[in-house]
Amino acid sequence: MKLSCPVITSSSDCVLLGHGSGGRLSHQLVREVFYPAFRNDLLDQDHDGCVFHSDTSKLAFTTDSYVVNPVFFPGGNIGDLAVNGTVNDLACCGAKPMVLSAGFILEEGFSLDHLKKIVGSMAEAARKAGVRIVTGDTKVVERGHGDGIFINTSGIGAVSPGVDIRPANVRPGDVVICSGFIGAHGICILSSRESLGFETEIKSDTTALYGLVAALLTSIDEIHVFRDPTRGGIGTTLNELAGAANVEIEIDEAGLPVSAPVRAASEILGLDPVYIANEGVLLVILPEQFAEKALSVMRNFPEGEHAVVIGHVVSSGQSLVRMKTYYGGSRIVSMLHGDQLPRIC
Amino acid sequence: MKLSCPVITSSSDCVLLGHGSGGRLSHQLVREVFYPAFRNDLLDQDHDGCVFHSDTSKLAFTTDSYVVNPVFFPGGNIGDLAVNGTVNDLACCGAKPMVLSAGFILEEGFSLDHLKKIVGSMAEAARKAGVRIVTGDTKVVERGHGDGIFINTSGIGAVSPGVDIRPANVRPGDVVICSGFIGAHGICILSSRESLGFETEIKSDTTALYGLVAALLTSIDEIHVFRDPTRGGIGTTLNELAGAANVEIEIDEAGLPVSAPVRAASEILGLDPVYIANEGVLLVILPEQFAEKALSVMRNFPEGEHAVVIGHVVSSGQSLVRMKTYYGGSRIVSMLHGDQLPRIC
Repeated sequence: MKLSCPVITSSSDCVLLGHGSGGRLSHQLVREVFYPAFRNDLLDQDHDGCVFHSDTSKLAFTTDSYVVNPVFFPGGNIGDLAVNGTVNDLACCGAKPMVLSAGFILEEGFSLDHLKKIVGSMAEAARKAGVRIVTGDTKVVERGHGDGIFINTSGIGAVSPGVDIRPANVRPGDVVICSGFIGAHGICILSSRESLGFETEIKSDTTALYGLVAALLTSIDEIHVFRDPTRGGIGTTLNELAGAANVEIEIDEAGLPVSAPVRAASEILGLDPVYIANEGVLLVILPEQFAEKALSVMRNFPEGEHAVVIGHVVSSGQSLVRMKTYYGGSRIVSMLHGDQLPRIC
Repeated sequence: MKLSCPVITSSSDCVLLGHGSGGRLSHQLVREVFYPAFRNDLLDQDHDGCVFHSDTSKLAFTTDSYVVNPVFFPGGNIGDLAVNGTVNDLACCGAKPMVLSAGFILEEGFSLDHLKKIVGSMAEAARKAGVRIVTGDTKVVERGHGDGIFINTSGIGAVSPGVDIRPANVRPGDVVICSGFIGAHGICILSSRESLGFETEIKSDTTALYGLVAALLTSIDEIHVFRDPTRGGIGTTLNELAGAANVEIEIDEAGLPVSAPVRAASEILGLDPVYIANEGVLLVILPEQFAEKALSVMRNFPEGEHAVVIGHVVSSGQSLVRMKTYYGGSRIVSMLHGDQLPRIC
């Protein structure tokens, strides 16, 4: 699905090369599209960047580029995905998201109406997540040298003094909690891209996870890791964590939260839900004694309503993820090798 | 100039879709290409982002995406350009650059050797500028949906308490200093792209400008603005500043620092040097009484050796840039309308 203007009725309907020139057309785009949506006092500085005050000296910094195809999908679009994704990466560092940047790479001919809709979704997602978009950049590439729109968001978050969330903290005796149903985003993108038309429309789970993180940090004394299992799914993410902490993690296939539509679609497509991307799922790893409390805190949030324990850290000295299967056996869940689904985010 | 692998002798020579999957191939790319080049203690956190301590609470934050075509050009490549450009945007906020992020959007088939060379240039530019690349992201798009390589860098800088650099500070009585010869980057990119083969090779001026900024902040009591005139050249930048401060700026055509090769090339191409992009030029606006001191400070640096006063802020109440021409007349320098040279950075 190419979202460029099919027939250019007026050049003002579409992105032009001049919109990336830094000249009058660039300023017009900023004034008419970006400023009205993102408006805040920090964005109004007319600087090459934004100068702001941080209350804390411990900061988190992260970046992600978004190239999702298609740009619009059930449950969201590249705009809210780009805001939520970076907000979640900050949250998973234990940080309160403060400010975001937004860098756009537009293909000549991309619809300005679509751009406005995407920018509007970014503004709305930022508002919901309590974060401001304070600096930005736009580049335009010639037709055929891009793909409609790519967005980079980078973000800065504030880490409270006592917070120490790190993969290396994971240790035997910890449990792995998953905040909700897995696989929705990946299946949603794949079915939109290929127009698969499953009976039940599967919506992306894209959402900001800082609410969950903040509540957990307030209520639980010891949390070792937060992580949002995006590309590569929980299988790849748990492998990363097992590798960083040099531990063995065991998960239980029967206990994995997979919705009926995602399970059905995965079976039809021959995909394993453990490798399917999520954009609104939080993994929390913490000592078992805090598990019940954490679950009850999480279940107060719509995005944590279906939180469950999905696994345990069983030993150290060897980096491994193992899954108890439905049939009572056990198999190794290795890291995804290549690409299950390209351009999922 | 497409820099993808012309003939794939081995898939290991080229970027594959799987390199953007978040799985094993992504990790391999990070381990073999990015980590060895960028290695520092902050990058080793295995987090979704980087957590670090800032000594100051006043921070600058900026972002830029780089889509320059061609990727390699005399004097640099997209890698050092991406580091220097973001370092310079921070410097122009009066900030000491601390940390950068790096987001890559690669086209399937892009040469891994070229990627390594680019990443090596980024590391070298970061080292020279005294900044660390602490977090990153890689996405891969299918052949024909990108253009080799796009890079986003975002950066955080520390602003000292007394520093207040803002376009709105500009006022009548100020002078405009230009750190050196203008137009080299734009002419370099255009001549490389079109293989124009001028008699004298014109190199990009890409360089980090924080050295100049730091020396000026230390030695001069009152500085109103720093700005690097990139896309749209000094003509567009001075219009932005005139607009932000609502002042009239007058520049003197005969006093503009334009090297003989750039002047010759501009005349052949019918381009006006005031609109040609720079990547290593600093404009400094400050009260006239500090001009001589500033010039002598700047001339101690290779990148400030040719610093000269190019104009004056003559009045307020009207936003305008005017140029005294060679022939004794005067003309208005308006903001560049569309695109003089697309994909210059």
